[in-house]
Amino acid sequence: MPLYMDVHNLGESVTLDAVAQAHAADLQHQDAHDVHYLKYWVDESEGRVFCLVDAPTPDAAVTVHREAHGLVPDEIHEVKEGA
Amino acid sequence: MPLYMDVHNLGESVTLDAVAQAHAADLQHQDAHDVHYLKYWVDESEGRVFCLVDAPTPDAAVTVHREAHGLVPDEIHEVKEGA
Repeated sequence: MPLYMDVHNLGESVTLDAVAQAHAADLQHQDAHDVHYLKYWVDESEGRVFCLVDAPTPDAAVTVHREAHGLVPDEIHEVKEGA
Repeated sequence: MPLYMDVHNLGESVTLDAVAQAHAADLQHQDAHDVHYLKYWVDESEGRVFCLVDAPTPDAAVTVHREAHGLVPDEIHEVKEGA
């Protein structure tokens, strides 16, 4: 399954708690699309959110966001992970 | 220790292996700055790299990149992680 990193530029500050609620909604909608939101990172002051997600296609990942809370990303990148 | 996500826009394709070599150089330089590069994600075709890093300051994280291989990020965001 391909791995993606998406980037949300919300354009205003956001709290970790608000993103956690959106993520919880993603988890409720993702199985139907064979998508797995794994982790996210939030720059609260700038309103920038990075989501790491396994998905069959980028569209599937974006569809889950759209259905769950409507906050679709500004970018989505197929990525390979290293450590 | 604050957590940061940086973003490199290389402007040309890059291989995971090339980024792995840069990361290995980071690991050689980071202790002196109390920085810990944790994970990275590479969009090979677009040349976009995301680095997750613990650091006392953003400057300390960027200094390690500069000393190790010169590829300083285009963005660096203090982030909070969720899953």
